[in-house]
Amino acid sequence: MGKKFVYLFGGRGTKAEGNAEMKDILGGKGANLAEMTNLGIPVPPGFTISTDMCTKYYETGGLPKDLKTQVQEAIRKVERLMGLGFGDPESPLLFSVRSGSRASMPGMMDTVLNLGINDETVHGLIKMSGNERFAYDCYRRFIQMYADVVMKADAEHLDEELDNMKKAKGVKLDTELDAKDLKTLVEVMKEKVRELTGKELPTDPMEQLWGGIEAVFQSWNTPRAVTYRKLNDIPDDWGTAVNVQAMVFGNMGDNSATGVAFTRDPATGANVFYGEYLQNAQGEDVVAGIRTPMPINISGKREASFVSMEEAFPEQYKQLEEVYLSLEKHYRDMQDIEFTIQEGNLWMLQTRTGKRTAASAVQIAVDMVNEGLITREEAVLRINPDQIDQLLHPQIDPEAKKNIIGKGLPASPGAAVGEVVFSAEDAEEETRKGRKVILVRLETSPEDIHGMNVAEGILTARGGMTSHAAVVARGMGKCCISGCQNLVIDYKKQLCTLGGHTIKKGDALSLDGTLGEIILGECKTISPSLSGVFGTIMEWADEFRTLGVRTNADTPKDSRVARDFGAEGIGLCRTEHMFFEAERILAVREMILSNTEEGRRAALEKIKPMQKGDFIGIYREMDGLPVTIRLLDPPLHEFLPHTEEEIAEVAKSLKRPIEEVKAKRDSLHEANPMLGHRGCRLGITFPEIYEMQVRAIMEAACEVSRDGIQVEPEIMIPLVGHVKELSELRDMTVRVAEEIMKEYGVSLTYLVGTMIELPRAAITADEIASEAEFFSFGTNDLTQTTFGLSRDDAGKFLSVYVDKKILPRDPFMALDQSGVGELVRIGIEKGRSARENLKVGICGEHGGEPSSIDFCHRVGMNYVSCSPYRVPIARLAAAHAALRNQR
Amino acid sequence: MGKKFVYLFGGRGTKAEGNAEMKDILGGKGANLAEMTNLGIPVPPGFTISTDMCTKYYETGGLPKDLKTQVQEAIRKVERLMGLGFGDPESPLLFSVRSGSRASMPGMMDTVLNLGINDETVHGLIKMSGNERFAYDCYRRFIQMYADVVMKADAEHLDEELDNMKKAKGVKLDTELDAKDLKTLVEVMKEKVRELTGKELPTDPMEQLWGGIEAVFQSWNTPRAVTYRKLNDIPDDWGTAVNVQAMVFGNMGDNSATGVAFTRDPATGANVFYGEYLQNAQGEDVVAGIRTPMPINISGKREASFVSMEEAFPEQYKQLEEVYLSLEKHYRDMQDIEFTIQEGNLWMLQTRTGKRTAASAVQIAVDMVNEGLITREEAVLRINPDQIDQLLHPQIDPEAKKNIIGKGLPASPGAAVGEVVFSAEDAEEETRKGRKVILVRLETSPEDIHGMNVAEGILTARGGMTSHAAVVARGMGKCCISGCQNLVIDYKKQLCTLGGHTIKKGDALSLDGTLGEIILGECKTISPSLSGVFGTIMEWADEFRTLGVRTNADTPKDSRVARDFGAEGIGLCRTEHMFFEAERILAVREMILSNTEEGRRAALEKIKPMQKGDFIGIYREMDGLPVTIRLLDPPLHEFLPHTEEEIAEVAKSLKRPIEEVKAKRDSLHEANPMLGHRGCRLGITFPEIYEMQVRAIMEAACEVSRDGIQVEPEIMIPLVGHVKELSELRDMTVRVAEEIMKEYGVSLTYLVGTMIELPRAAITADEIASEAEFFSFGTNDLTQTTFGLSRDDAGKFLSVYVDKKILPRDPFMALDQSGVGELVRIGIEKGRSARENLKVGICGEHGGEPSSIDFCHRVGMNYVSCSPYRVPIARLAAAHAALRNQR
Repeated sequence: MGKKFVYLFGGRGTKAEGNAEMKDILGGKGANLAEMTNLGIPVPPGFTISTDMCTKYYETGGLPKDLKTQVQEAIRKVERLMGLGFGDPESPLLFSVRSGSRASMPGMMDTVLNLGINDETVHGLIKMSGNERFAYDCYRRFIQMYADVVMKADAEHLDEELDNMKKAKGVKLDTELDAKDLKTLVEVMKEKVRELTGKELPTDPMEQLWGGIEAVFQSWNTPRAVTYRKLNDIPDDWGTAVNVQAMVFGNMGDNSATGVAFTRDPATGANVFYGEYLQNAQGEDVVAGIRTPMPINISGKREASFVSMEEAFPEQYKQLEEVYLSLEKHYRDMQDIEFTIQEGNLWMLQTRTGKRTAASAVQIAVDMVNEGLITREEAVLRINPDQIDQLLHPQIDPEAKKNIIGKGLPASPGAAVGEVVFSAEDAEEETRKGRKVILVRLETSPEDIHGMNVAEGILTARGGMTSHAAVVARGMGKCCISGCQNLVIDYKKQLCTLGGHTIKKGDALSLDGTLGEIILGECKTISPSLSGVFGTIMEWADEFRTLGVRTNADTPKDSRVARDFGAEGIGLCRTEHMFFEAERILAVREMILSNTEEGRRAALEKIKPMQKGDFIGIYREMDGLPVTIRLLDPPLHEFLPHTEEEIAEVAKSLKRPIEEVKAKRDSLHEANPMLGHRGCRLGITFPEIYEMQVRAIMEAACEVSRDGIQVEPEIMIPLVGHVKELSELRDMTVRVAEEIMKEYGVSLTYLVGTMIELPRAAITADEIASEAEFFSFGTNDLTQTTFGLSRDDAGKFLSVYVDKKILPRDPFMALDQSGVGELVRIGIEKGRSARENLKVGICGEHGGEPSSIDFCHRVGMNYVSCSPYRVPIARLAAAHAALRNQR
Repeated sequence: MGKKFVYLFGGRGTKAEGNAEMKDILGGKGANLAEMTNLGIPVPPGFTISTDMCTKYYETGGLPKDLKTQVQEAIRKVERLMGLGFGDPESPLLFSVRSGSRASMPGMMDTVLNLGINDETVHGLIKMSGNERFAYDCYRRFIQMYADVVMKADAEHLDEELDNMKKAKGVKLDTELDAKDLKTLVEVMKEKVRELTGKELPTDPMEQLWGGIEAVFQSWNTPRAVTYRKLNDIPDDWGTAVNVQAMVFGNMGDNSATGVAFTRDPATGANVFYGEYLQNAQGEDVVAGIRTPMPINISGKREASFVSMEEAFPEQYKQLEEVYLSLEKHYRDMQDIEFTIQEGNLWMLQTRTGKRTAASAVQIAVDMVNEGLITREEAVLRINPDQIDQLLHPQIDPEAKKNIIGKGLPASPGAAVGEVVFSAEDAEEETRKGRKVILVRLETSPEDIHGMNVAEGILTARGGMTSHAAVVARGMGKCCISGCQNLVIDYKKQLCTLGGHTIKKGDALSLDGTLGEIILGECKTISPSLSGVFGTIMEWADEFRTLGVRTNADTPKDSRVARDFGAEGIGLCRTEHMFFEAERILAVREMILSNTEEGRRAALEKIKPMQKGDFIGIYREMDGLPVTIRLLDPPLHEFLPHTEEEIAEVAKSLKRPIEEVKAKRDSLHEANPMLGHRGCRLGITFPEIYEMQVRAIMEAACEVSRDGIQVEPEIMIPLVGHVKELSELRDMTVRVAEEIMKEYGVSLTYLVGTMIELPRAAITADEIASEAEFFSFGTNDLTQTTFGLSRDDAGKFLSVYVDKKILPRDPFMALDQSGVGELVRIGIEKGRSARENLKVGICGEHGGEPSSIDFCHRVGMNYVSCSPYRVPIARLAAAHAALRNQR
């Protein structure tokens, strides 16, 4: 007997061969089917083929004999449990074949239902169900799916045959076709399959089954699955398991039904049982969004005419309530469940941890702590820091004037404002041009994911809260309204109508995903805030984290936003942004155009009061918190005009010849500005610039300090590569600072430190620390120099790198821990070897990215600094880092 | 009694307080004066004030009391030895005050002679010498020097008074003025000093002496001294000693003389005593070049009318011969000596190791080994690797047609061809424009050094072999002809005449520094070779070195030159240089303009045979030696045309619309091309390019190998930052290589490796070594990325950095050992931790720079690779590294 690849589950009163802990080999679905079995919950019997087999399949290109034996044996056991026979013409057992990987990949891989049906067994099915129409409906569904998934025929042609039949009969719904129609359709479709593929549809049940199993393994590597994994950081080598399970039928008549539900509201997190079902339907019908499903309970009814399951199937609803409560208690988390009622019998087909919006995740986590189900640590760890980004995005301003032209299901909350497009391709193209778009579709499919990924929001005419659009949008944290039934779309004319309005491609539309409102034009949005349960989670996170969280802010306004989000100081205030403002850029240009130190000093004198004003505003906002101010960083040519008109204008304003301005611009041109005359190199060659800045920083500090504001300036010298650059500029800084404090008669604590953003600085950090009271790792530039990769130019080939898996992720998004990170580690180690109490932070964009924050925690930084809107993400990620690494 | 600052030397039959080992505190001059004293050689008595005092002087800004006491005591002792009294009006002792640092800095610092003379002691001097003219000549010399050096008066005004006097008397030479004239001149000059400085010339001998001592200390930090130290890598903190020595007079009449000599020929190294002297003159007259000196011996006479010292002072010449032989034997090296004959008595004023040309250094070293004076190791260590650069520069082709228009002294050998300029400023300006210049001056002074430094060669009208121009040019390894007496220069008109020709600024001139010939126009030059004693030194160097020496060569011709110079393989063959050649650039552009892989492959097929041809040529030259070939490195836009005309031409040739060519150029434009789409990034995105190159490399190898050529290709992937880049390209390389060897039925050893030129590569070298059989450190790019410094742009501020001493040297010239070097060290350590036998070399320009080569030796590289003409330098530097580090 070789390795075990097949694990039995299901049936009433039995135990499964697996359990919930075995997700790695059984996949999420299989493990949970086994777990439910073990909990005594009714699950149709079946077996899981392990993920190892998927790996083996890709290694060897086929399925081993050993597997065949194990599958045969498992089938025998399922036959016994169901009292049916696979291929038995009298009482036939049918199977479903479903994928199931470690991580949920909704709709990404293939499924085949009703395996085992053929011209013989269909009669057994008729006999068993007493329902000829049902049996032929199963048959035609089988043919459609099998042809599509296993035989790779173009499924649209079979759909056409279905439509032709409906037209011929003058009906609209599939359910209006009778047994005879469907029987004819089966023959037509078989013929069509022959025509499309040149092959016969297999009639042997075992042949059908092996085709289905192999097709599921193959679907692991379809382009859409690969894209989904890349977007969701799922490793390619995990593979999928295959779940082969006895079919139970929700479409055996009005006594049957099928549904999906969440144990709590996946959009808001409210502790209510929430779901949808369809009478006389197979499970795929609910999620496919073809028929609009009914609510599972009375409380979920949006329209009085709807009939809930609670009303139509009261007994089974009660049973389902028991099941869901026991599942939630068992798993200690909100569950996403699937069930089928076959002729009055409830069968559970799936349970898994439910996807949810960030708002829902936060609400559920806090509630479950209050309910005593989970600990605070667990609650904090359950909130994905990346996901809460959506809570930090704007919402439609409740005060705004709104021209609401329609309503749909509030499938994923938040606000979206953009121009309408009608295809994923257009969504991509327009966003490439820098436009913001709303993707409007009848319904979405996995093929639309790339467009959904770039859109601000998604609006669909069909589909419920669990439709493809809804599930995927929630996962992406994107605003989505689904099932807007009044929306009429004309793809050809590239327009849609809603509430009497015609909206063309490119017209502005706003979506309120929280309320499900569709608003004409651009609607005003408001900023989010940390209140209620979100505030609670943040408080808990702050209890656990040890890393400080600061912000990168250049204005009093940004400083205020960041402080409201919990920033504990400014980690990076970029003074050059101040230089660009309209009223001062002229003085800056005058300074650059001066050929003498005197000329530059005169121009700098004009800039100083303005810079001082900026700092005063920031200090006031950050009262009591440290403020790290970086001296001028970009090369001077960035401040000069580029177009002929601008040059002429500047020349006129400064009363200089145009030629002189051009000559200066040319003389400042650089082959590689990233590696050029910038950062502290400016301070060394034009000390008067940095001197003015230090004056402005210290004068502002002295002035606000007189008003009782507590101010802690940290003056940061950028782009230091050699300790002597720092020592020279530090000497200047200290000299000027002491002068000014003497002048004002004020004594302040201030620090002088440096950015570590060049490999040489990291490598010689011990020398540099002798002159620096703090280090701030500028990992944007450090990534550029360590990789020798210009961020501005990398776009042309970096995507190829990620596609070819040469780099696991874009190193400008997530810190490259083994390369750039190793330099950071060396820099901290060497720096602290020379100055034990060296304060160390990070101010590159990685400071707001969770995996990078985990790294910063591990290498012992004091704080991370990120953009104001990412401060809560950083706080949460820092808590995760502390909790994970203490384990 | 405090620290000892004053060390006595000199006098006959006494011992000195110092010796030759004490150069650090006594300076070279002081240590050798002490050593000569100890050898029993007649040295005028005096004392040395140590270099510590110079440091102390700069620290405290003054001279301590302690020193005054020690100096007073030393003066008493010198008075006793000389039987004279300092300030004694009857028998006055006069002093000279001279600088003397650890390293020779000829003419860079100040000297004052005849200290102690005043209106009283001048009479004692008259009495002692019986020569009133001599005494007043001393007095007026004292005033001129003291006013200039100590009182900082503009010395030209005093020179004018001397000229006025000569005009008034109708004479041309100083010696034609009589005692009365000089006596009048003394009074006139004293008055002039009062007028110029507002101060009296001090009459107190002690005041004079302290003024002189302090002036010498001050002269350590004059701009010209600082420049010289920077050019010669002499640390600023060494300081200078001051030598105070009893005056002896070469200008006491025709019975007196003064001279300088070398114990061997400093230009050729020939073992002949070689020098110049002047009768009735002070030492400064010889080196100042005002009077043309006479040869020291009969063998040195260039004109029959000259009177040598051997003839004029036969007895003293014999004594001098004994002295020089004993000095050379004692010091075991060629000496540069100064002497004075005062009324028939020979006094030695100085001995020091003589500066010499590289040719001379090599000749002397080999000769001294043959004479049994020194070991081979010493001989090798005595040749400065940087200096032999001059032996590797072209010489005037002996076969060339030469329009010789004049002759001068062959002051520094080699050939120089360039455009004439008449000032150091013009020399700098023209070379900035990319021109090669010959600096033509009446004579040079320390103010001209910056111009000499950039000139190809120097031509002077005045001055001997030991003139400023000659000494400095030899030090710089620059061709120089001095003392061309027929040369008439008109600075105002910016022209000169020689041999009946008028040469204007900008006219072409050639110099043969070996023969002293001045040639009109541009003369043909020939390449140097390693023969004779140079070859011998190189053989010895090879015995000692352990580092291999390869070359960077892209053509068969360069390969041949390098092999002749001893290269042991090619360390870097840049394939892109081949792309630029006229006949193939079109195909390259066609390849770039293709928007499909097929199009690129078609164009590459045209390039392949040409590349293959290049490799065949190189393999043949390097038969039996390894050849490292780097795959395409620069960004593709470098191959595209830039001007409108070129674009039009290319569009026409390729039959493409101009707009298309422009659009491609624009689409390939990069903000930071140094950090852009280049190196292996091209190989990843356009695998067909590298594939073609590997094919060409391996097909060429297979073909020559069939002809019996032994070929060892090493294929090098550039700009690797992540191991996966390398593994992908390595797989491709191995696949293609194996294919081709199979095709040809040939089995070859080939290696696949990478350049380490990005910090990330060095930091993750263990991962990278798992895929690389060799590393070659590309320290040009590694320096750029480690410092974040673009070589193209750094020119604007790097000089400020070196001036402000923020960087000790330009890191592109000499490897930055603590930063970039540390990454190299880490890279080697990590690389070898993963692959013990990893072959490691360097192919940046540092591979030819001696201090960097020493580093490469210490970190355990296998070889260095440098440009062909630097191969001998690298061989010698590698030997130095081995010898120095084994100590």
